[in-house]
Amino acid sequence: MATRKAKKKREPRRPGRPRDEANQRERLLDAAVACFAADGIAATSQRSIALKAGVTPALVNYYFGSTQQLLDTFVAERMLPVVATLRESVLAAGTEPRALLRAFVQGIYGVVDRYPWWPALWVKEVLNDRGALRDVLQKQIAPQVAQVLATMLAAAQKRGDVSADLDPRLIVVSVMGLTMFPLAAEPIWRRVFAADDLDRDALLRHTLAVLDHGLGGAHAR
Amino acid sequence: MATRKAKKKREPRRPGRPRDEANQRERLLDAAVACFAADGIAATSQRSIALKAGVTPALVNYYFGSTQQLLDTFVAERMLPVVATLRESVLAAGTEPRALLRAFVQGIYGVVDRYPWWPALWVKEVLNDRGALRDVLQKQIAPQVAQVLATMLAAAQKRGDVSADLDPRLIVVSVMGLTMFPLAAEPIWRRVFAADDLDRDALLRHTLAVLDHGLGGAHAR
Repeated sequence: MATRKAKKKREPRRPGRPRDEANQRERLLDAAVACFAADGIAATSQRSIALKAGVTPALVNYYFGSTQQLLDTFVAERMLPVVATLRESVLAAGTEPRALLRAFVQGIYGVVDRYPWWPALWVKEVLNDRGALRDVLQKQIAPQVAQVLATMLAAAQKRGDVSADLDPRLIVVSVMGLTMFPLAAEPIWRRVFAADDLDRDALLRHTLAVLDHGLGGAHAR
Repeated sequence: MATRKAKKKREPRRPGRPRDEANQRERLLDAAVACFAADGIAATSQRSIALKAGVTPALVNYYFGSTQQLLDTFVAERMLPVVATLRESVLAAGTEPRALLRAFVQGIYGVVDRYPWWPALWVKEVLNDRGALRDVLQKQIAPQVAQVLATMLAAAQKRGDVSADLDPRLIVVSVMGLTMFPLAAEPIWRRVFAADDLDRDALLRHTLAVLDHGLGGAHAR
């Protein structure tokens, strides 16, 4: 608590205080994220973050306070901005359902390209029924993206632009399964199918094709 | 080790030995599975299985030996028979790709209906990069089902029965994402979308429709 108070007061720099504070803080947050994705949030201590970053646990505590505060900071600074970007790309895509879902899928690929830890963390902390981010997903992420998307797809279905035998809410679930699962399971299927000839772009093209026409396809048969 | 030796020798029943051995053993294996699915395999001790089943840890050890032997027994008696059933239903479906994938998806739904712990365990032990069943999946499960399916889909594609812009291996990945993900994430999307009006059958019908025609659909537009 003493260190946090000191930070708020913005006292002049003393010997022993980190020099490049902004960078240091980002670097520690990166180390926290790496630990979360590798070991899971519950198994990550300030000590393990410090070890990863090559600093003392006290320094981690100085920047982030308690473990819960650290998690809140991670959500606020590393997850929600990404979700906001995803939301913007969906909203910018218009109302045509194919364009909408294409924007969503490409948005997710963009996120994972930039933050490769995202799928592993999603498996451990959201899909896992003991996950620490289930509440965050439900209360802060889903309303921003999943619910918006489902509402737009329901409107498109009313206009006759989405097949009547699909459920607009389940379309969002299907699309998550078609994008996040293959990205999370990439190391598995690459080995199972000896599929190193397929790059991320090939996976994205395949995924968009399934979404567009399923196994069928206007030109295929 | 002494108790295992005793078991092999099939000594006459002594006081303190369980009465209905076959049932007892199945019941303990069920308790093990419940612990694996809830807590994860690494976090499950013989003590926690015993606690769950209301017996002594020594009895768990009597039936299954070491923790590794217990895991091997679980794989041999609770996973591989299910995989064999799934394989049979795929092989019985013929070579038409839609019928093939329909059989696979329905087979998975059948498994999860009968063994509701399957999706949670799959998330914790296969999808999770620290999962204890990744090797089992790769060496014992995937060759039985996933690789067979991919080979059949590749043959169907050569005959022109699968859209040319899909990869037969990735179709298997997509189908896993379209089935296992929604089943594993069911508690999440039910809350996010207030979707308690949708039952398992509605989810299955939706999934088969996506697989069949994606967002499009011959009759939709």
